[in-house]
Amino acid sequence: VEPTALVLAGGSGTRFWPASRRSRPKQLLALDAERSLLAQTVARLAPLVAAPDVWVATTAALAPAVAEELERVPAGQILGEPAGRNTAPAIAWALLSMPEAARRGIVVVLPSDHRVADPEGFRRTLARAIEVAAESDRIVTLGVVPRWAETGFGYLELADPPEAGSGAPRAVARFREKPDRATATAFVASGRHLWNAGIFVFRGTRLLEAIELHAPGLAAGLAALDAEPARAAELYAALPSISIDYAVMEKLDDLLALPLDCGWDDLGSWQALFEVLPAGAGGNRLHGDAVALDTENSLLFADHGLIATLGVRDLVVVRTGDAVLVAHRDRAQEVRRVVERLEAAGRRDLL
Amino acid sequence: VEPTALVLAGGSGTRFWPASRRSRPKQLLALDAERSLLAQTVARLAPLVAAPDVWVATTAALAPAVAEELERVPAGQILGEPAGRNTAPAIAWALLSMPEAARRGIVVVLPSDHRVADPEGFRRTLARAIEVAAESDRIVTLGVVPRWAETGFGYLELADPPEAGSGAPRAVARFREKPDRATATAFVASGRHLWNAGIFVFRGTRLLEAIELHAPGLAAGLAALDAEPARAAELYAALPSISIDYAVMEKLDDLLALPLDCGWDDLGSWQALFEVLPAGAGGNRLHGDAVALDTENSLLFADHGLIATLGVRDLVVVRTGDAVLVAHRDRAQEVRRVVERLEAAGRRDLL
Repeated sequence: VEPTALVLAGGSGTRFWPASRRSRPKQLLALDAERSLLAQTVARLAPLVAAPDVWVATTAALAPAVAEELERVPAGQILGEPAGRNTAPAIAWALLSMPEAARRGIVVVLPSDHRVADPEGFRRTLARAIEVAAESDRIVTLGVVPRWAETGFGYLELADPPEAGSGAPRAVARFREKPDRATATAFVASGRHLWNAGIFVFRGTRLLEAIELHAPGLAAGLAALDAEPARAAELYAALPSISIDYAVMEKLDDLLALPLDCGWDDLGSWQALFEVLPAGAGGNRLHGDAVALDTENSLLFADHGLIATLGVRDLVVVRTGDAVLVAHRDRAQEVRRVVERLEAAGRRDLL
Repeated sequence: VEPTALVLAGGSGTRFWPASRRSRPKQLLALDAERSLLAQTVARLAPLVAAPDVWVATTAALAPAVAEELERVPAGQILGEPAGRNTAPAIAWALLSMPEAARRGIVVVLPSDHRVADPEGFRRTLARAIEVAAESDRIVTLGVVPRWAETGFGYLELADPPEAGSGAPRAVARFREKPDRATATAFVASGRHLWNAGIFVFRGTRLLEAIELHAPGLAAGLAALDAEPARAAELYAALPSISIDYAVMEKLDDLLALPLDCGWDDLGSWQALFEVLPAGAGGNRLHGDAVALDTENSLLFADHGLIATLGVRDLVVVRTGDAVLVAHRDRAQEVRRVVERLEAAGRRDLL
């Protein structure tokens, strides 16, 4: 059986406001390329997983927009969750929705809103993970080789450091929460820590067994859902809201990891996007219709209409049809404060 | 006969781009108040000149927008010039279009895109100018008492300094071009120099006589125009393009000036607007829909949609439906460079 992919595309967030909205979250945006991060995620899987073998878990509200992005993914494989219950219910429900052959085969679960600079390298590691999961019948995760002491990610601690160039899997000793700066620095120096990127490879039935074992409450809820599909909305909403890491992965004593070194980036802010886009004249990054005069090291991102700048530096300027954000680059990660202000003011039109 | 006003509203410019466009120049913008500068100009004349006694000279293209701004001005008194030929032809043509009684009475000519902080003070000086023009049958200009050594304006040099508080008119010795900084400083120190604000008060027939005398080429063209109204467009376009200052005012040896001290401002740039708007929290000036977080001394001018700023200072941000300008306040007077760039790129949609 060919492997199946399950792309998680139910996320929402505020870090790319005003480009991102409730109705058009980050994964649906074309931030770093012509296509949305979601469309890039699916395209990047080929030829390991072709579009007809891709499933997507998203919210009911986003499902139509997701389907529009992914024309080659069969409509019946784009699952709109009746309610947002985090990743463990989403993954389990998707597995139970697949034909039995797919569920008994290898499934790749991955987020839809990350960037990969080197898709070839990504596929090389993913192909190896698929092999390892099939041969060992264990759950395999791809952990990103850290490029700096990031405090915004969780880490996977390996029992032994990965062997350079061998591609051999390593046992995961434990999951580590987002560290403080000193701990993050020690993690990177250790050579035994990888960024947890939320990418898992397993035989579908194997994961469902692990849920039975480690998350019996969720398993019981899923059984009820399976028994009464007519009450799906109500029963889904009653599932425990829990992440797959917390429900299962952190509890496994035989989780394997493969180090991933492919220019992975979670694109967590406008500043992160600035860093991955190629610098043009003056160190500026221009997207869309922009005129930059005497402007340096700024990101001008025009979704709609023109951005013109004059005599400024180190700014993020993002223009949509109904809003514009002008922020110092060093403050771009605080854009949530703008969103909170708009929420408090009841400006649902801008959220 | 009640005085008549002639408002010159044919100007175009780039200094308020992107709010100002060819189809909506500065005088049609509501920059410092709820109403456009043009509407404020007409409102400010009452009760000295009521709207039914106001005439407006503008371009044919702008006439409909001007009429919309000035509902109480009779439509037949809004003159769309067949071609832009500067102020002397515009004023002369308007005088010839008026009923003879108005032309034989006092006419106040004034620009439509300036700001007056103290309308009461403006009317006091204007009323005096109307009296003086009627009694003396001389042309009277209102010259602004300079508040700083401006190098961007022309000056009127008086034969003698004005008498404080007397309101007596003074003879204009000569017109002075835009000075360099040292000269401007000397002008202000002299007490004998006023800013030329382009406001003139005269009996209409008196001005037409002055044109006959000082600008015979223009007078001949006007006579031809008067003789063949059917060929107005062609004959108007053939008039010499010349300002009223150059054609007439600078050549008079009996021009009188009254000092005007009423918070007059020509609002020459976004920076000038910043200076006249009242400061809010953080020294910011907000117009329209704006959210300013950790923002200082910035002008946020939202014509359409929201402006949100975060961690910035000393910026001008102007948002319209199709463009946004982000400029350092010190560079706002260079916005013409953006317009030139757009012209060079053939972006007529944004001009």
